[in-house]
Amino acid sequence: MSQQAQQLFDRHRGTLAQAVEAIATREFWTPYPESIKQYPEEAVKEAPQRFEALLKRHFSLKVPSVAGQVGSEVSPYGFELGVTYDQPERDALIAAMRAALPAWRDAGAEARVGVCLEILARLNAMSPEIAQAVSHTSGQGPLMAFQAGGPHAQDRGLEAVTCAWQAMSSVPATASWVKPQGKRDPLVMEKRFHIVPRGISLVVACSTFPTWNTYPGLFASLATGNPVILKPHPGAILPLAMTTRVAQEVLEEAGFDPCLVSLMPDSAEEPVAKELALDPAVKLIDFTGSSAFGEWLEHNATQARVFTEKAGLNTLIIDSVERIEPVAQNLAFSLSLYSGQMCTTPQAIYVPRDGIQTSEGRLSFDEVAGALAKAIEAFLADNERACTVLGAIQSPATAARIEECRGLGEVLLDGERRQHARYPEARIHTPLLLKVDASQRDAFSEERFGPIGFVVATDSTAHSIELAREVIGEQGAITLGAYTTDDEVAERFEELAMEVAVALSLNLDGGILVNQSAAFSDFHATGGNPAANASLCDQAFVTPRFVVVQSRRHGQLD
Amino acid sequence: MSQQAQQLFDRHRGTLAQAVEAIATREFWTPYPESIKQYPEEAVKEAPQRFEALLKRHFSLKVPSVAGQVGSEVSPYGFELGVTYDQPERDALIAAMRAALPAWRDAGAEARVGVCLEILARLNAMSPEIAQAVSHTSGQGPLMAFQAGGPHAQDRGLEAVTCAWQAMSSVPATASWVKPQGKRDPLVMEKRFHIVPRGISLVVACSTFPTWNTYPGLFASLATGNPVILKPHPGAILPLAMTTRVAQEVLEEAGFDPCLVSLMPDSAEEPVAKELALDPAVKLIDFTGSSAFGEWLEHNATQARVFTEKAGLNTLIIDSVERIEPVAQNLAFSLSLYSGQMCTTPQAIYVPRDGIQTSEGRLSFDEVAGALAKAIEAFLADNERACTVLGAIQSPATAARIEECRGLGEVLLDGERRQHARYPEARIHTPLLLKVDASQRDAFSEERFGPIGFVVATDSTAHSIELAREVIGEQGAITLGAYTTDDEVAERFEELAMEVAVALSLNLDGGILVNQSAAFSDFHATGGNPAANASLCDQAFVTPRFVVVQSRRHGQLD
Repeated sequence: MSQQAQQLFDRHRGTLAQAVEAIATREFWTPYPESIKQYPEEAVKEAPQRFEALLKRHFSLKVPSVAGQVGSEVSPYGFELGVTYDQPERDALIAAMRAALPAWRDAGAEARVGVCLEILARLNAMSPEIAQAVSHTSGQGPLMAFQAGGPHAQDRGLEAVTCAWQAMSSVPATASWVKPQGKRDPLVMEKRFHIVPRGISLVVACSTFPTWNTYPGLFASLATGNPVILKPHPGAILPLAMTTRVAQEVLEEAGFDPCLVSLMPDSAEEPVAKELALDPAVKLIDFTGSSAFGEWLEHNATQARVFTEKAGLNTLIIDSVERIEPVAQNLAFSLSLYSGQMCTTPQAIYVPRDGIQTSEGRLSFDEVAGALAKAIEAFLADNERACTVLGAIQSPATAARIEECRGLGEVLLDGERRQHARYPEARIHTPLLLKVDASQRDAFSEERFGPIGFVVATDSTAHSIELAREVIGEQGAITLGAYTTDDEVAERFEELAMEVAVALSLNLDGGILVNQSAAFSDFHATGGNPAANASLCDQAFVTPRFVVVQSRRHGQLD
Repeated sequence: MSQQAQQLFDRHRGTLAQAVEAIATREFWTPYPESIKQYPEEAVKEAPQRFEALLKRHFSLKVPSVAGQVGSEVSPYGFELGVTYDQPERDALIAAMRAALPAWRDAGAEARVGVCLEILARLNAMSPEIAQAVSHTSGQGPLMAFQAGGPHAQDRGLEAVTCAWQAMSSVPATASWVKPQGKRDPLVMEKRFHIVPRGISLVVACSTFPTWNTYPGLFASLATGNPVILKPHPGAILPLAMTTRVAQEVLEEAGFDPCLVSLMPDSAEEPVAKELALDPAVKLIDFTGSSAFGEWLEHNATQARVFTEKAGLNTLIIDSVERIEPVAQNLAFSLSLYSGQMCTTPQAIYVPRDGIQTSEGRLSFDEVAGALAKAIEAFLADNERACTVLGAIQSPATAARIEECRGLGEVLLDGERRQHARYPEARIHTPLLLKVDASQRDAFSEERFGPIGFVVATDSTAHSIELAREVIGEQGAITLGAYTTDDEVAERFEELAMEVAVALSLNLDGGILVNQSAAFSDFHATGGNPAANASLCDQAFVTPRFVVVQSRRHGQLD
């Protein structure tokens, strides 16, 4: 192993040990503070200028051979980024990666993990700057762009490195195999075991969480020895370009080929993901995005292991509550946060048509729906806070969908356009909340990505559970929220969660939203329903990324 | 958990702990002795009668609803078994398994592992009897049928249970997640984590190693909570029927539905594997057999995780040796054992056309090839030993292939029919060894299953390595044997092994054959080349068989 890489591993050994411990206990832990106050004041202050200095320029990275230039990102806050990027010539890039692979493989798990942890540490230090790029590509509000785009994304990257480390270090480098032969001398075999990467890894990123959804695949593949091509969404290239630059710097300093992490940007007009995904050298694919493309990858890129996170129908079931206000407030936040553009945002809220029990008496269906609409209205009354929470709508198609969906039910709360104090062109919309009947299944039972929610009148909680079982069984889901004051009903929700393989959040009415997912503790998606075939981050996410190749020869007893 | 299951877990806890340790060190270990002398004398003595008592009768198992009867096994030693089996009605079986799943899932990892270990312990005690059934379906000689069909198969089953145990027990059942909030009270979430099986598991077995290649998938799936359908090869049903009976007995005694392990026998005329494999309830498929069907499964059964072991081109490269005799003797055994019907038997033997260096001087290509032919002849000179080592040819197609291949090269050693002392109709054939040139690639570069070997004249060892790289890259391989006295060349073999992801056996000239693979130490196949997409047994073999479903709710600080 290179001396530099060994130093990196030694530097971060303590963090790795803590991460191993956190994953085993699944208790709260992170090495990357989520409070911006804990970052150097200067870095925070300078971040906007540093971001602006990147605009209207070429962003250079190490590229074996340049095919052309791309880049036409537009901030959802209403201005063109004007950044251009080199698009690598594909065959030259793949050839360069194949050439770089053996040295990266032979460096061993410690060297690779050391490099990965150093990349993450440097990304962490850059969080304020990365937050700017995440905000002005995804549209996330500044606080969320900082947390989800910075430390929380880095957490998920570290989690993936740690899982990979556990998987690799469970295989010894060597073994002496001594088989007794009765009175004769034993048979002795000396064995070596090598961690061998699958090949080239392709990460196809999304526009809403360009770092959070990309780091797990990037770091799981890189740590296990696979060169990684990052294929950003054409609308959110910059955060991954910045990530690639850091990765290339660390790789080069440690004596490796920087092209082991390479950016392959493209344009909406000339997408490259399909061709890349079918390249025989590509053996691993991580994808976040539409079900259509995710399923296409699963069925067509059969030369690769494909890890997908797709669309789903996140679901809430309300059976009964102590008090409706804290529940409505919690859900108002859930539905508003980043304008419903999270893969964890609930869309369908099942409520019995004859209402629910509370400790303050019975509430009719309309009272429950009304409380929810009112809570959203109140939560977003202050425009400055609303703009921060809502962020901007990433794509014009999502903004258009709000209007398209208005006719699908009775409007409980209309979505409205908001004006951002600093960015008058920002695409900011409050949630549209509709009332529908369970029989209007076409309306609510497919994903309507964006700030669009449905309060669905069901016959009973049993009916709500049955509907959820069917719809999630067909469409998948990443989150299931449920409310009940009855322990027996709570167990039925737990049973439902197992049946459709979705994470359950029960009776959230405080400082945690169903949308939130904490690395080292919460598994993000289960991989067991149509919304995702993988989980962030379990052993099944890392173990298929390498194979063990052994050799054996006769040996002598010591 | 049921009290019975807890008792089973407690009974086998020590074995499990030792297995965990063995997998971590990959040193020699087994709880199942491979010497028949270590089994009760009576069990060994009675085995043939017990086997005969099963013949010409119906073999009964627990079946929810019977669709019909099948069974027309013929011993490769030349007699009809005359055993019939119930074929379950498919939809009824799947419905029964779905109904049985929740209790098996909710019993938890300890209960399931306890049941699995008890099944294995009982199978171990029955090894002499199972050996009879394995021998008279696969054709394996009695010693091999005992070892590979009994203890070695059980080793692989235990290895799979142990890997599953490690994967499941790395996830805690509960966690308290306490997130500091500065001066405010911390956020507290109480979390539960459930191991949730994928669904119904289908194991499609082969005729040559009906237990050894079936137990890993069976036990990996069962331990992780999945009901398992065993679909035996129509020619080798009995060993899996016996296995199913034991599994059903243990399941029932422990309070579970016996149909959690069910046999789905079929006939060559009306095969059921394809339909079963596409059933939406089937979420896991383990397959051993032809590349054609394995690839069909990989491409078509996309609703399931598919683990395949297919055909490949096992390869030997001879660069140089100390002395040719012990090498030729070792290879003679390798090529003769079970008439080359092992998935690990070498087929192509690359030797430079200008010969090789030995410590006793240079040997020409023809001298090397001749030494090998002579060693096989000598090894099989004693007919009784020959019959024991060769076993019988499982299928008439394999026997016919020997004749079909005679014209593919120059005959170095002709295959001959042998007469078994007790079974005159037994299909016993010695190996055919052919000499070909590297340019005759069509002859040697596809799998010719059975006792057929090719000594291939190459330009040099570098050329041998290049050929192996290309052919294994295209066709895959499970084993690579190589001989050299030069450390630098040895490192090139090691590099080749990593490039094509195949296990390397270097300079075997003693009591170990390239064919042999020891559980807890040797990984059987890597999953990284076309011969197999999975390895027996690594974490990638078990982790995709379950998902983790969590729930979380607000909690209080203790």
